[in-house]
Amino acid sequence: MYCVGVDIGGMSVKIGVVDEKGNILKKDRVVTDVAGGPHKIITDIGNCIKSLVDINDRDFLGIGIGCPGAINSARGTVDRAFNLNWYHVALADELARIINTHIKVSNDANVAALGEAMYGAGRTYTDSIFLTLGTGVGGGIVLDGKLYEGNESKGAELGHMVLVVDGEPCSCGRKGCMEAYCSATALIRETKKAMTADKSSLMWKVAPTLDDVDGKTAFECSKQGDRAANEVVNYFVKYLGEGMLNFANIFRPQAIILGGGVCAQGDYLIYKLKDYCKDRNYGFADTPRFDILTARLGNDAGIIGAAGLIFADIK
Amino acid sequence: MYCVGVDIGGMSVKIGVVDEKGNILKKDRVVTDVAGGPHKIITDIGNCIKSLVDINDRDFLGIGIGCPGAINSARGTVDRAFNLNWYHVALADELARIINTHIKVSNDANVAALGEAMYGAGRTYTDSIFLTLGTGVGGGIVLDGKLYEGNESKGAELGHMVLVVDGEPCSCGRKGCMEAYCSATALIRETKKAMTADKSSLMWKVAPTLDDVDGKTAFECSKQGDRAANEVVNYFVKYLGEGMLNFANIFRPQAIILGGGVCAQGDYLIYKLKDYCKDRNYGFADTPRFDILTARLGNDAGIIGAAGLIFADIK
Repeated sequence: MYCVGVDIGGMSVKIGVVDEKGNILKKDRVVTDVAGGPHKIITDIGNCIKSLVDINDRDFLGIGIGCPGAINSARGTVDRAFNLNWYHVALADELARIINTHIKVSNDANVAALGEAMYGAGRTYTDSIFLTLGTGVGGGIVLDGKLYEGNESKGAELGHMVLVVDGEPCSCGRKGCMEAYCSATALIRETKKAMTADKSSLMWKVAPTLDDVDGKTAFECSKQGDRAANEVVNYFVKYLGEGMLNFANIFRPQAIILGGGVCAQGDYLIYKLKDYCKDRNYGFADTPRFDILTARLGNDAGIIGAAGLIFADIK
Repeated sequence: MYCVGVDIGGMSVKIGVVDEKGNILKKDRVVTDVAGGPHKIITDIGNCIKSLVDINDRDFLGIGIGCPGAINSARGTVDRAFNLNWYHVALADELARIINTHIKVSNDANVAALGEAMYGAGRTYTDSIFLTLGTGVGGGIVLDGKLYEGNESKGAELGHMVLVVDGEPCSCGRKGCMEAYCSATALIRETKKAMTADKSSLMWKVAPTLDDVDGKTAFECSKQGDRAANEVVNYFVKYLGEGMLNFANIFRPQAIILGGGVCAQGDYLIYKLKDYCKDRNYGFADTPRFDILTARLGNDAGIIGAAGLIFADIK
């Protein structure tokens, strides 16, 4: 038994054949022809899938799709996806006209959360929260083994929880969202701020100009004991920890899983986060604590998680 | 068909016979004999129920119980309830020894949320968030018509979502929780602060000394145009609005229902909240908006919601 997982990105669409254990058996990709419009991309996806699997094979169970933007997963539609320039695209229906099978669509961050929960870092838990820390902060929620997307699949916007009323401006228009403190973008902003304030920081050796700063700069120098870099890392850990504690108080998940580039910091980041959260978790001796883990599926998370939409559905 | 709803409070236990439409057919109460210990209270509850219903009647479906503190609803145990001085009390099992029927236990705020969702302000919605603004801020979550309590029923601690990292101290030990901004306690604190800063405020007429200040003082004077009182109300609305928007981004509920004394402000509060949230709701034209409503069940919410635990379970 196998499914096809489709991971639609702004540059390319990654497509894989995935078995029920989350192994990718075959994969391919097509260019995301944004200018060609949705019909062209969907046709390209359909043709690619046909080249990978025999669509009449009884072991072929369906197609799961992760797509950026606002999705209505019950209808299989993409309501809005800015970077694809898609508005009200009946993705599942259009693809079903090419390949008549079971098709499920969800938001890309939700799909990654499901993938990690079913096949990755969250495999041994029933309740997990996934946060992906990149340009923005995305997230997904898995409750009792099932993906929770919010009413009309428009919730789980975990990056847009305000942590500081009147705080740093966020891309969403509000101020003080978790995204404005815990994204790679925010980390870079704080790194630059700290470097500007401390011309003697080791960070100037690693990043000779402010344009050279990336999400690793502060972490690298913090590991070497640089005071200014340490403060940047502690700032990042503090806000991320506060956000995680908020989710803990709402969902009491068994695990919070972190994805995105900053996870390359591995245990250095995880230990600091555990230390921050240890004494701040609401409740008493019998209140369940949460594990903090980095994502495991890497670049294939989108394909594997998308296939998971189908496997989870037929369970 | 009818259930018994039990609402355990620090002073008294309210007990009612409730039909499937949420009507209370009969009710009674027993004193919460905290000094007597859990066995005494549970025996008193059992005897009171026996005096209200024929426990052998086939139309008697079971007993729902709302209890303050940390509950394990799967096991029917009270892990901790400070103001009852209860620790690891097997509430459902002990009561079942007196009355052998279907028994469910949940946290009192969760029970009130379920009651409002099934029989009160949330009746027409499938997804609602309930916030009760009193000494603290409690809450409950109803998703797709079902009570969501978090893993091990230890989540839904909605008042302990930090809105301001490093903000006002909260009873839970963290700083900046919603409870520290949106409880009646916080409203009174801000009212006193504003009065101290403005000796000419109308609030001094309504509350001649700071000891006379209550949750209504600022609202009453704001309605009469007092500037200082207005600022207090706007402060309260702003933080409450930000908290509600956070929950909207996570759950995208159809409604957020407010309980507690401040709801006596009715439309005056609701209009201001709607106005605050209107332009700040994340998402686009097709993202569902949430209604803001005050609770409807009043003092009987605990009994009705507790009975709802049984009706929801047998549905």
